[in-house]
Parts: sequence; structure tokens; C-alpha cells
Amino acid sequence: MASVLEPVGSGGQHPAHRTGAECGIGQSRGPAAKTPEQIFALLAELRARDPEAPALATRCPADVLDGAATRFPGDAVHADHVAGTLAVGTLPPARGNVLVVTAGTTDLKVARECAATLAVLGVRADVLADVGVAGLGRLLSRLEDLRAAECVVVVAGMDGALPSVVAGLVSAPVVGVPTSVGYGVAAGGLAAAASMLASCSPGLVVVNIDNGFGAAAHAAKIIHAVHR
Amino acid sequence: MASVLEPVGSGGQHPAHRTGAECGIGQSRGPAAKTPEQIFALLAELRARDPEAPALATRCPADVLDGAATRFPGDAVHADHVAGTLAVGTLPPARGNVLVVTAGTTDLKVARECAATLAVLGVRADVLADVGVAGLGRLLSRLEDLRAAECVVVVAGMDGALPSVVAGLVSAPVVGVPTSVGYGVAAGGLAAAASMLASCSPGLVVVNIDNGFGAAAHAAKIIHAVHR
Amino acid sequence: MASVLEPVGSGGQHPAHRTGAECGIGQSRGPAAKTPEQIFALLAELRARDPEAPALATRCPADVLDGAATRFPGDAVHADHVAGTLAVGTLPPARGNVLVVTAGTTDLKVARECAATLAVLGVRADVLADVGVAGLGRLLSRLEDLRAAECVVVVAGMDGALPSVVAGLVSAPVVGVPTSVGYGVAAGGLAAAASMLASCSPGLVVVNIDNGFGAAAHAAKIIHAVHR
Amino acid sequence: MASVLEPVGSGGQHPAHRTGAECGIGQSRGPAAKTPEQIFALLAELRARDPEAPALATRCPADVLDGAATRFPGDAVHADHVAGTLAVGTLPPARGNVLVVTAGTTDLKVARECAATLAVLGVRADVLADVGVAGLGRLLSRLEDLRAAECVVVVAGMDGALPSVVAGLVSAPVVGVPTSVGYGVAAGGLAAAASMLASCSPGLVVVNIDNGFGAAAHAAKIIHAVHR
Amino acid sequence: MASVLEPVGSGGQHPAHRTGAECGIGQSRGPAAKTPEQIFALLAELRARDPEAPALATRCPADVLDGAATRFPGDAVHADHVAGTLAVGTLPPARGNVLVVTAGTTDLKVARECAATLAVLGVRADVLADVGVAGLGRLLSRLEDLRAAECVVVVAGMDGALPSVVAGLVSAPVVGVPTSVGYGVAAGGLAAAASMLASCSPGLVVVNIDNGFGAAAHAAKIIHAVHR
Amino acid sequence: MASVLEPVGSGGQHPAHRTGAECGIGQSRGPAAKTPEQIFALLAELRARDPEAPALATRCPADVLDGAATRFPGDAVHADHVAGTLAVGTLPPARGNVLVVTAGTTDLKVARECAATLAVLGVRADVLADVGVAGLGRLLSRLEDLRAAECVVVVAGMDGALPSVVAGLVSAPVVGVPTSVGYGVAAGGLAAAASMLASCSPGLVVVNIDNGFGAAAHAAKIIHAVHR
Amino acid sequence: MASVLEPVGSGGQHPAHRTGAECGIGQSRGPAAKTPEQIFALLAELRARDPEAPALATRCPADVLDGAATRFPGDAVHADHVAGTLAVGTLPPARGNVLVVTAGTTDLKVARECAATLAVLGVRADVLADVGVAGLGRLLSRLEDLRAAECVVVVAGMDGALPSVVAGLVSAPVVGVPTSVGYGVAAGGLAAAASMLASCSPGLVVVNIDNGFGAAAHAAKIIHAVHR
Amino acid sequence: MASVLEPVGSGGQHPAHRTGAECGIGQSRGPAAKTPEQIFALLAELRARDPEAPALATRCPADVLDGAATRFPGDAVHADHVAGTLAVGTLPPARGNVLVVTAGTTDLKVARECAATLAVLGVRADVLADVGVAGLGRLLSRLEDLRAAECVVVVAGMDGALPSVVAGLVSAPVVGVPTSVGYGVAAGGLAAAASMLASCSPGLVVVNIDNGFGAAAHAAKIIHAVHR
Repeated sequence: MASVLEPVGSGGQHPAHRTGAECGIGQSRGPAAKTPEQIFALLAELRARDPEAPALATRCPADVLDGAATRFPGDAVHADHVAGTLAVGTLPPARGNVLVVTAGTTDLKVARECAATLAVLGVRADVLADVGVAGLGRLLSRLEDLRAAECVVVVAGMDGALPSVVAGLVSAPVVGVPTSVGYGVAAGGLAAAASMLASCSPGLVVVNIDNGFGAAAHAAKIIHAVHR
Repeated sequence: MASVLEPVGSGGQHPAHRTGAECGIGQSRGPAAKTPEQIFALLAELRARDPEAPALATRCPADVLDGAATRFPGDAVHADHVAGTLAVGTLPPARGNVLVVTAGTTDLKVARECAATLAVLGVRADVLADVGVAGLGRLLSRLEDLRAAECVVVVAGMDGALPSVVAGLVSAPVVGVPTSVGYGVAAGGLAAAASMLASCSPGLVVVNIDNGFGAAAHAAKIIHAVHR
Repeated sequence: MASVLEPVGSGGQHPAHRTGAECGIGQSRGPAAKTPEQIFALLAELRARDPEAPALATRCPADVLDGAATRFPGDAVHADHVAGTLAVGTLPPARGNVLVVTAGTTDLKVARECAATLAVLGVRADVLADVGVAGLGRLLSRLEDLRAAECVVVVAGMDGALPSVVAGLVSAPVVGVPTSVGYGVAAGGLAAAASMLASCSPGLVVVNIDNGFGAAAHAAKIIHAVHR
Repeated sequence: MASVLEPVGSGGQHPAHRTGAECGIGQSRGPAAKTPEQIFALLAELRARDPEAPALATRCPADVLDGAATRFPGDAVHADHVAGTLAVGTLPPARGNVLVVTAGTTDLKVARECAATLAVLGVRADVLADVGVAGLGRLLSRLEDLRAAECVVVVAGMDGALPSVVAGLVSAPVVGVPTSVGYGVAAGGLAAAASMLASCSPGLVVVNIDNGFGAAAHAAKIIHAVHR
Repeated sequence: MASVLEPVGSGGQHPAHRTGAECGIGQSRGPAAKTPEQIFALLAELRARDPEAPALATRCPADVLDGAATRFPGDAVHADHVAGTLAVGTLPPARGNVLVVTAGTTDLKVARECAATLAVLGVRADVLADVGVAGLGRLLSRLEDLRAAECVVVVAGMDGALPSVVAGLVSAPVVGVPTSVGYGVAAGGLAAAASMLASCSPGLVVVNIDNGFGAAAHAAKIIHAVHR
Repeated sequence: MASVLEPVGSGGQHPAHRTGAECGIGQSRGPAAKTPEQIFALLAELRARDPEAPALATRCPADVLDGAATRFPGDAVHADHVAGTLAVGTLPPARGNVLVVTAGTTDLKVARECAATLAVLGVRADVLADVGVAGLGRLLSRLEDLRAAECVVVVAGMDGALPSVVAGLVSAPVVGVPTSVGYGVAAGGLAAAASMLASCSPGLVVVNIDNGFGAAAHAAKIIHAVHR
Repeated sequence: MASVLEPVGSGGQHPAHRTGAECGIGQSRGPAAKTPEQIFALLAELRARDPEAPALATRCPADVLDGAATRFPGDAVHADHVAGTLAVGTLPPARGNVLVVTAGTTDLKVARECAATLAVLGVRADVLADVGVAGLGRLLSRLEDLRAAECVVVVAGMDGALPSVVAGLVSAPVVGVPTSVGYGVAAGGLAAAASMLASCSPGLVVVNIDNGFGAAAHAAKIIHAVHR
Repeated sequence: MASVLEPVGSGGQHPAHRTGAECGIGQSRGPAAKTPEQIFALLAELRARDPEAPALATRCPADVLDGAATRFPGDAVHADHVAGTLAVGTLPPARGNVLVVTAGTTDLKVARECAATLAVLGVRADVLADVGVAGLGRLLSRLEDLRAAECVVVVAGMDGALPSVVAGLVSAPVVGVPTSVGYGVAAGGLAAAASMLASCSPGLVVVNIDNGFGAAAHAAKIIHAVHR
């Protein structure tokens, strides 16, 4: 198992492992982004604490992703430039079946962050991209795949309508991830987040905007409970 | 033609004919709601100005709806208690084909206000209720009706997702009407309005929350242009 | 199984079964609340459609709760005056183990709505009330119960801090339910909702404000997947 | 006809054709903007799918606009540097008569995006710039042109007052496009959007901020219905 | 001169003279509204402090307006039931020329509060009602009156567009008063206030929503400066 | 010492003692307000847990305040109808010197809640009312009292300017309490709260809107630290 | 007299003369900022239309300010690098007496924009900087200057408290200008704007954030009315 | 004692000494950031006014921090590159005991600004970093340190939950400092600020987002009162 999500009640691990949270997008918001060396140091510390488990950093800039293989020569390194994720260490065997669905192609970055996190947590994940509600035909043609999944993560910006539609089509748990894709009233993702929270489809749950990592953490808990 | 929507460039008619706008819902917001007698007087004034055309009041309280037949003994009176609309005078012959669609049953009041306004403006309108995105099957089973309409008005509260879906299914112009149905982050209809404005379906246009009257005014302009 | 949450892809059931959604709190927001007779009619329709399953209405006024036994003489009637829920029909056998936790006593209404919905959906649920973060001792003294649950629903208004704390203490999936309890900047529950969505505890998911029903729907999906 | 707006019910086309949506303005908001090569590839794909129809990209950076002629040597290329639009392929014959009106000169970019989209969709469009409400004389001197149009698109930032005034002057359908022009309380265009949605002129409909493309899509549907 | 607006630098008078501020609309917002007896006592105190000047209370409930003549038997009493204003004492001679313009009839309450306050402050004021931008003809037909005024106060809810138009038509100072008239995105008057603040007409200034009193106070200062 | 504010680390007391929090103002927001009997029961429970300490309920309706003497016959009962506070039990001796300042008379309710809470916590408090910034003279005439206080609590609605001014005049710690007094953009107290948080006077701290109780809790901690 | 503020009722001048509005700060908001050459062209056009009057551009970048003397060799050029204003042409004789007051030194840019605009409009203006409410002594020591002014413009960011204080100290008309100076809840100036609009000082009027130009336009109208 | 916080009632010092407020974060918001030379000049002026006291600048860019030793050769210079603070002059002896706690490592910048300010004000401060609520164990293991402090400052972004938890664990005064760390709904720190203001822990007070300086100013006043 990965370091990332162990229970923390006894003084254990804290969210600082999301070392990338202040890279990239966070960099212009918070008072301080981490340097590449700080990210590498945090990953090394996570690796040292639990050598059996891979360590994950999200929202990494390109130089972190490119320099990781050199920095961790003895380790397996999994860098996803679309997602901005970096996993160091051997990935655990994957079980379960999570489908990560996106409304548009620009939501792919968040979907891939979700999938990369699930891989680190030992969960199998497939990505089904670009099936937004403006073209229902594409979505409905994949109904079989949607209904086969044990958990569905739906990533959508702009109107945020897709998770409500998907949650009406499947009986598995559905997690909505609003994204900051959009402009005007959609800017920042609040319109999508509000639409998902106000969904008329019962049982749809929501995480923070662009938080593919958090959706993966929740989905992994479900899969681990099912495949205990 | 009705008094309601004549061009106003030459000092003509102004929106005060929407006499009901401050009744009911408006009553707790604005500094002053109209009394029943004020509404009756405004309707009589509109009737006198153009005796050929019916006059319309929206958002009327029950005592206005119930008292209208007595107040206008010689006129045809069309009172819709669900919509809160009151039309006085003979309705013009209906032409065109507008479909007013609602996501839930509680959106019906706004949809009926839209349909009643269209009737006053000489446009034929049907209402298709309760086909929200949580149950796509119901919507898809009415695809033929949707595609037959010359203009579709989609009324939805909560997530506001239905107009985006409908706009992806038909080629006619689509008008979204967000409603104040909902609670929590949906309260007041802003979440639905934002979702519609941020729609990924090109060409969806939006009116104010609960504004079935305004959607009808726009739809009627389209129908009148088509059937000139 | 209950009528409430069946998959809806084939034209089936829609969210109108949440017949109570416009009672009480919704009544002052939306354009139209349902009358007691409308609620009874909807419940009867749900019962007729699937006589094996109980039917549920949430956010019912007292006269609906009090009149239900008379209206459904041959049926088991489960009315919870704190929650405002009404279930008609024999409840299915309960399985699984969901713990519904509240920060304060005034959050109890929402927690009880969640528990009543879970009962209708065939899931066992216990309520642990009044363990907010201002008195961590009470929460920590129940750590064993928290960690025994297969899914934890955490109901909190005001600061919305409790779900973040609980999600750091257990490894089961955690669902946060913000409530409208509070005043000033907390009014309406947006402060609590935002705090939960922005949680530093990975994997916490969130539903709409006061939406105990929605949290139950998600938790039931998890429990049904685990106990397939 | 163009690829851009075909009905999508049978699994067809989705909004990703708005390839430029993440270029420029979108670039700082969403998690990923498209590269020039991705935009060219998308356009080529649209062209290949329907060689009879021109393909359109909006919000393109200058290098895309400048490189298009080289990239599509056999095709007609229509690049508008003010609008940031790129149309590839022979434009269809134009019919109808849409007038695109702007309040200020800085709203011109959005108006030109609207006009360029209309051209791709086979609709004739003229632009009447800089007739904002601070100088009513300029607007009133063009009353004849305003009233001759079959549909009027009104583009305005800051106070967003112009569409309400225009909608009171003409009987054709009017679409308001709020823009992000302005500063202080106007920043981002929300003040203009709210003013338009709350218009006292019945029948005014609204699209997202800076969404000249969406206004064109709606206007084109109207024109196509009228000139069927 | 009235008690209401004397300079306060030397420990003088404070805004509590606006005794009605918590009656009516304010009653549901603040923690405590004043009782009729408290309002009468405050007026009496103001009268005693400066017997030469009339005292003014705004936003008074009907029982205060109706009971004033009995309560102040020796004084001239000016009660305006539309405005909710109560002035006690002989009004000073009026000078200057302020025009108070309203967009709709429901804005009249605020306009009358403004006019009543001006009367107490010794300023002549006329009200020109119901000349909103949806019917420019009515407004333009009164251009002479508009341009004759030494100061124009423009009262508008909903879109808040009228002050921008008026400020473009006259050279005298213009004060915009947003009102809470409206619904949906206009509710509460914030849309109107934002549109006025973001006006493209230079020199338009704005007061709080529904604050006819404040607009009068500013207009009176201007008139007193001009007619020194 | 009172029950109200004991440290809670060992499983102790939680904020439910603020039994009145859902009475009055809270009643229309949260899902459930406490009944008089529930408030009395909570007070009795607090009394039983620590018979030496008085117990406090805030935001009590009049029937609770009036019925307390009968309900707690053997106890000292301190009911403040302006503040809505009810203290049961002998008050501890008062030490220290806190000055509670208000901008307007309608802020008095919150100021009295603060003073009543301080009395229960064993702190001496005086109230200086109606010294808002519109009349600086009144404030400056009390400079000696302001500078003599060991802690100053400043209660202000509307513009929220007074705490910034006071914090510039004294060297003791200053706590700002925004109130919901006001209308228009001030409605609910957010404008006052934002102004206080953004203060240019260093060291001003802020509590929730209308939270006189919370300001008292902080002030009491300071006084107890000083007079240890 | 300057070109900038002529009445516009007869089809005349529109707000585009604020040529600098999209330079600098506006550049990152709107879809298009003006180039230096566009600004020069607009100024030349204004000069040509009325050679007697100076023309003004606000929010100019440094290269515009530096290049103006070369571009307009025969004209008097008044460039203020703090304000970012550029006036071309001989300034009219100054009359009247406006005092522009700032809370902090960083508000100076806006105050200087106001003063430069007043100079172009033929009004004498002095700037009194850095007299914010955190140090009342500095403000009170200039009471004589404050009370001598015929109109006072008060520029303040952060808490926005200074205009309320000043409006309580003088009897002349006071205009508040909120600025975007600040961080956190003050960011963008909305907190300051709201505080000013909600002021407890009667008669305070407000313009848009950072809109020194608009405040000057209003103040000039007052001065011109007084000195007719 | 330092120059920074002297009482200002007699015309003294104003907040402009926070010279760094417009550096860095403020630079993109306000109309004008200070240059290094302006900062040095302000510090020199503060030094000259009171040579016994150190002078402090916050939010300084690196070139200011690096150049200070050269610019003030005879003075002790304390530059903290994490905090962005620069103190010039001999620090006063430290007394008291303030604990500055942070939820995450990225909150450290604000915590260090707080600690550096306390040092300048003669107060001893320790920083306890990275004890957020997602890992309660780390926090609870430092309970002794928490309870030993005379005042606790809690710095937290994202959910802002930590101050509520800490305020429930200690009896000393607690000051919450929301930070802009986070993304999505947390962006800018408003979610954290709202959660802290709405805290269920009585007595928690709050300062502006990222305002470590302000929290230090308040804490120092408490410590100085205790150690008089």
C-alpha cells in the first residue's frame, strides 16, 4: 500500500505529502510554493518512512517530472506530464474497477491526476474522455462500460452537468469533480461545483475544484472496502 | 396581438404592465407590492388602450385570480392558479409550436407562466413536465416531440443541467429558465442560472430566475418572425 | 429494496419521489410547495409502482406525518418528527454499519433524515450526536465506534470542521453534510460547505447543505457494494 | 453548412470544436490550454469529418492565426486578429440579417467573434460599434438599422445597460452578451451579466460573459428558422 | 433648517435620527427594531433640541404615521404613507430644483422618501415616475424637465440602467439610487447597484440600496451650496 | 467560575450550552430551534454539572426570559430582555475593566449580550452606546474612558468603521463585533465584518456577526490572564 | 472647457474618451487593451473635435506618458506618472476648491487621477494624503482645510472607513472613492466599497473602485453649478 | 519598544509603516507597489523618529531583504526570507510566551511574519508547524506546549479547521489567521476565514487573510497587559 492515505489518528501522516499542491496552480495563490528540491526531499522522506509503498506528488512542474529519474535512480518512477503527477516506487497490484469520465478534453489533466493517484493506491482505473452532455450520443454509446464500473468519478467544468446525468444512469457510487475549465460565470469552477452539489440525482457526492487526488482517495476507500 | 410586447421606441408602453411582478414572490423583496385594486386598474387601463388585445398580469395572488371574472364581467378571463397568471380579453389565434419542458414538478408554476404568456401573445405552447436529467429515459422517450418544436423553453431549478442536455438534442433555438426551486447551494436559483450560462451546449440562452414571462416574450418574437 | 434509488436509465423513476423536498424549508424558496394531499398521492403512486418496497418522503410538515397512518391504513408507517421523514411500507432487513455523527444537537434533524433514509434503503445506521470539535474529548472517547463503521456520515454546521477531523481518524469512506445551522457568516451553511470541500483530509466528499437524504443515498450504494 | 452546430443526439459532435476556448483568456484558468498543433489537428479532424463545411476555432493566439495559411494550404483561411477567430474552408452563402451592436470600442473583440461565427454558419452580420448609453444620440441615429435587423446581438461590458435599451427599441429578438470589459465592481463582467438578466425589457436573453460564439449560435438558429 | 443634517464634528448629532431605519424592511435584519413609542420619543428629543427645525423619521410603520398627529398635537405633521416618512414641525421654505426620477412604479416608495427628506431640508423636489429604459420614448419626452433640474436623483431597481442613461442626457450632477425591486439575480438590489457603480457615464454617483434618504442628503448639500 | 467557558480537552463541555443560539435569529435559519423546555433542561443540566457556577443561555425568546424565575425558584435569575440573555445562578465577583462600545442604538442588543456574558464570566463591563463615526465628537469626548479600559469591545453594523477608529485611539486589545444592523449592501453584517477584517488599524481582531457572546469569551480570557 | 464631460444628448461624445481605461489595470481584464498609437489617435481626434479644450487619457502606461510630448509637439502636455494621466492642450483657468483626501500613501495614484481630471475640467484641487482613521490625530489637525473645501473627495482602500468619518466632519458634499489597495477580504476594493455605501454618515455618495476620474467628474459638476 | 504599534490618538503614526504591504502579494492588487528605495526611506524615517526602537517592514521582496545590511550599515538587521520581513535596529528583550501554530508547511510564511513581528514588539514566540487536523495525533502530542502558552496564534488555510480545534483545547486567548493557501473553493482564504469566524469554539477571534502581522499586534497587546 501507498504512504498516501494511511489512517492518521496516532500522530501519523499528514496532508503535506501532497507536495505538489502548491506547485503550478497553487503557486499564484498561496504565500509560498515548494521548490523542486523541497518536493524531492518530501518524497524521499515518504519513501524512507515506508519503503514498501510508492510516494506521490501532484501538481508538479515539468522540471520535477523530468528530474525525478535522476534523483531517484534505484526506484521505479512514474511521471505523467498531462496530470503533473509523480509517483516514486513500485506500484502495488491493481484491483477493482473505477471509471474516470470527463466532459471535455481540457478536463483530462484532472482525470489523469485521479487515475495516477488510484494507481498508487492499488486500484485499477480507466479514463473515458470527452463525453459531455452537449453530445449525449457519445455518452450513451458507452453505457455498458459505465454500468460495469464499481465506482465512477465524473470530471466536468463549465456547466458541471455531466455528473448529474451519469449518476442517473448507474447504480454504483458516483463522485463529481468540478474543474476550473471555463470562463465568464464558470471561471474558477464554482458554477460547476454548485451545480453538482445541487444535483437532482440522489447520492452524487462532490470534492473540491480540480481535486482529482481527493476523488481518487475516496474511490480507493470504496474499492478497498469492497475487495477486502 | 396582445398589449404586452409592442415596440416602445415612440414613448409607448413600459414593463409596468407586468403588474403581478411585485405580487407574491416580489412582495417580500421590493418596497411596495401592488394591491388587487391597483392590478385591476392597470389591466383595465391596458384594455382601454388597446381593446383588441388581451391584457396579462403575472404573479397574481389568489384573490386577484378569483375576483377577476366579477371585475371584468364583459371580458373573457383566463386565470391559471398554478401559474398565478391572469389574462383578460379574447386570446388571439395561436400559431407556431413552442415546447415548454420542466425538470421537476415544482418547476411547473414557471412553465405555466411561460405557456400562459405565449397564449396571450398568439403562440401555441405545450408543456412537457418532469423530464429531469436524473431520469434520462423519460426525456429520451419524448425526443420526437422535442425535435418537432420550433422553439424549446427549458425550465429547471437545482443543478440547472436539463437545458444543456436538451440544447444538445435539438437544432431549434433553446431558452433556459433557471428556477428558485432547491435548497442549500441551489437556494434562489443562482446555481442553476450559472450552470446554464456556462453551458457547453452552444447557443443556449438564458433569462432571469423564475422568469417564465421573459422566456415567452423571446420565444414569441422567434415564432412571429418565422410565421410572418 | 426501496423505490427510492433504483437506476433510472430506462425511463424509470425520477427525483420527484423526494416529495418532501419542497415542504418546510423549500416552501419559502421555490415557486410552489406540495400540499399534504399531493405528498400522499405521490407516496401512493410509488407504493403502487413497487408494492414490495417502502416509499419515502422527506421534509414533511407535521400534518403529513400525523395523517399518514390514517391515509395508509394497511401499511407500516414510519414517521420521524425530528427528521420530518415519512416512510410507508415494510422496511427491508438492515445490513452494513453506517455511523452518522453530528457536531451539535441542532444538526440532529439532518442526521435523522440520513438515518431514516438509510433504513428505507436497507442499511443499518447509528447516530452519534454532539461531538463537535470544540470538545475533542467527547469525539476521541468514541474512536472505537468511529473506526468500526463501514462508512461515516458527518453532519456539521457553523465552522464545518468536524468532517475534516473525522476523516483524519478513520480509514472508511467519509461523507460530509454541511448544515444551515449557524448565523452571521455561517448563515445558510455555505461556510461549512466550503470548509468541507477545502478539507486538508484526503478523500472527504461532500453533499448539498442539509442534504441528509443525499448522504444516505451515497452511503447505501457503498454498503450495497460491500455486502453484495 | 458548418460543422460547428449540427445536432448531436446521435453520438455526434461535441463542443470540443471550440478549440480556442482554452487559448488566451482560458489559458490562465483551466488546467490545460491547447497547443497550436492541437488546435490545427482538431480543425483538420473537423474538416475531414465534413469537407463541405468550414471549421472554426475561437480565441486563437496570434501564432495560430498566422500559421493557418501554411498549415491548410489548399483551403480558404479566414483569420480575424481582432476577434481571435480562425475559419478554415469555404464560407457558405450568407442569408438573413443580424446586427451586432457594441457599447464601447473595447467590446469589439467579442462582437467580431460573434460576426465571424455567424459567417461560418451562413448568416449575414453587420457590426455597429460604440453606441453605448452614455451617448444615446449615436444609438438613436441608427434606429432604422436597428429595426431592420431580423435579430440583434448587443455586446456590452461595465454597466451592461445597452441591451435593455435596445430591447425596448426593436421588436426582433435581442441577445445580450456581457463582456469582461471594466474594472472594480464590473471586473469580470458579472455586473453586466446580472443587469442584463434582471432587465426590465421583456424578452431579452443572455449568454455567458464574452461568449460572442454562443450568441452567434443562437442567432443563427433563429435566422435558419426564418429562412427555411 | 432641519435637525437632520447638521455637521457633527463637535460632538453633535448622530444618525440615530433615522429612527425608522429598523422599522419595516430593517425589522427582519437587525437585532432590534424600534417601537412606535421609541420613534416618537426620538422625534420629540430632536424637536426639543432644535424647536425651529422639523424632525424626520423614515421607514415608519403605519401605526406611527397614523398616530403622529395625536402624539404631536401642536406641531405640523407630514406623514407620507407611500414613503413611510414622518416629518414633525413646520417645513422650511423650499429652494432649488431637484428632479427625482423612477424607472418603475414600484420604485416610487424610495423616490417619495427622497422627496420628503428634501422637503424637510428646505429643497424643492418633483417626482417623475415610471420612465424606465424599456420605453425610452417616455423619458425622452421629458428631456426639458430633466435638463432644467439643478440635480437629478434617479431611482431604479432590476437592471439599474436608467441612471446611466440619464447621466448621459444632462449636465447637472446625477445621483443613482438602486432599489430592491426585482427578483432572481436582481433580488436585494445588488445587480442594480453594481450596474450603477460600473456606469459608463462619467460622474454618476451611487448611494446604498433603497436609500432615498441618503440621496436627498447629498442633493440638499449641492442645492445649499448653489443657493448660498 | 461559570460553566460556559471551561477548557474542553478532556471530553468536557461543548457549545450546546449556548442554548439560545437557535432561538430568535437562528430560528429561521437552522433546521430546528430549541423549545423553551429544552432550553430550561439544558440550563438545569449545566447547573447540576457545576452547582457553583451560573449557567447562561443567549438569544432567548421572551417566554423563556419571563418563565425562568418560576422554573428555577431557588436560584438567582438574571434576565436581560434587551440582550435576550438568561443567567441562572449567583454571579461571580467581577474583576477587570472591559468597555463595550456601540456605534448606534440598534447595536445595543449585541453589546448587552456581550456585557451579560462577561458578568457570568466574572468580568466587570460597562457599555458606552451610540458613539458612531458620523459624530466623532461624542466618541472623542469619552477618550479617557476608552483609554482606561483593559480591553475594548466595539460593536458596529452598517459601515463597520468604528472599531478601526477606536483601535487607533487606544493601546489595549480591541475586539470588533460586526452586527446585522443595516440594509442594502450592509444587510446581514458582511460589509461591516469585511471592513473590520480589512482594518488599517493593526491588532484589531474580529468575531462573527452579532456574536457578542464570542467577543465576551475572548475578552474574559484576556482579563483572567491579566488578573491571575 | 474640456472635451471630456460635455452633455451627450444630441448624439455627441461617448465614454471612449477615457482612452486609458483599458491600459494598465484594465489590460488583464478586458478582451483588448488599447495600443499607445490608438490612445494617441483618440486624443488627437478629441483635440481636433474641440481645439479649445484639453483632452485627457487616464491609466496610461509609461511609454504613452513619455512619448506624448513628441507626439503632440505644438500642444501643452501634462503627464502625471503617479496618476498615469495624460492631458493634452492648455488647461482652463481653475475655480472652486475641491479637497482630495487619501487614507494611505498607496491610495495616492487614484487621488492624483482625480486631481488631474479636475484640472482638465477647470477646477482647483488640493491633495491631502495619508490621514487614515488609524491615526485620527493627523486628520483632525487638518479640520480647517477640510471644512473650507466646497467638495471633498475621500479616497480609501482596505476598511474604507475614512469617508464615513470625513462626511461626519464637514457640511460640504463628500464623494467616497474605494480603492483596490488591500489584501485578503479587502482584495479588489469590494470591502471598502460596501463599507462606504453602508455608511452611517448621511449624504456620502460613492463611485466605482479606483475611479478617481468619475469622482472628479461629479465634483466638477458641483463646482460648476456653484460658480455658474 | 518598537515604532510599529504606538497609540496614534495624538496625530502620531499611521499604518504606512507596514511598508511591505504592497510588495509581493499586494503588488498585483493595488494601484502602486513601493520600490525598494521607498521602503528603505520609510524604514529610515521610522528609525529617525524613534532611534531606540527597531523598525519593521513586511512582505518585502528579496532585493530589499538582501540589500538592507548595506543600506543600514550601523544597525542590527533582521531579515527573514521565509517571512519576507525586515527589522532594522536592536530588538527589545523578549517577554511572555506566544505559540504560533500552523496547519501545513505552506502556512509557514505567515507564521514567521507573525513571529518576526512579535520579536520586534518585545514578545517571545515559538513556532509549531504542520499540526493540521488531518493528523490529530501530531497536535495532541504537543498538548503540553499548547497549554503552556499565554496566547496561541493559529495559522491555517484550506478548511481553516485547526483554530476551532485548538481553541477547544486551551484556556488562553486564541487568534485565528486564515491563509490564502489552497485552491478551488478555498482560493484566496475566504473559506478558511469564514470557518474561523463561524467557529463553534467560543472566544476564537480572527484577523484578515495572511495577516500574521495583525495577529502579532493583538497578541503583543495581550502579553504587554499581562506582564505590565
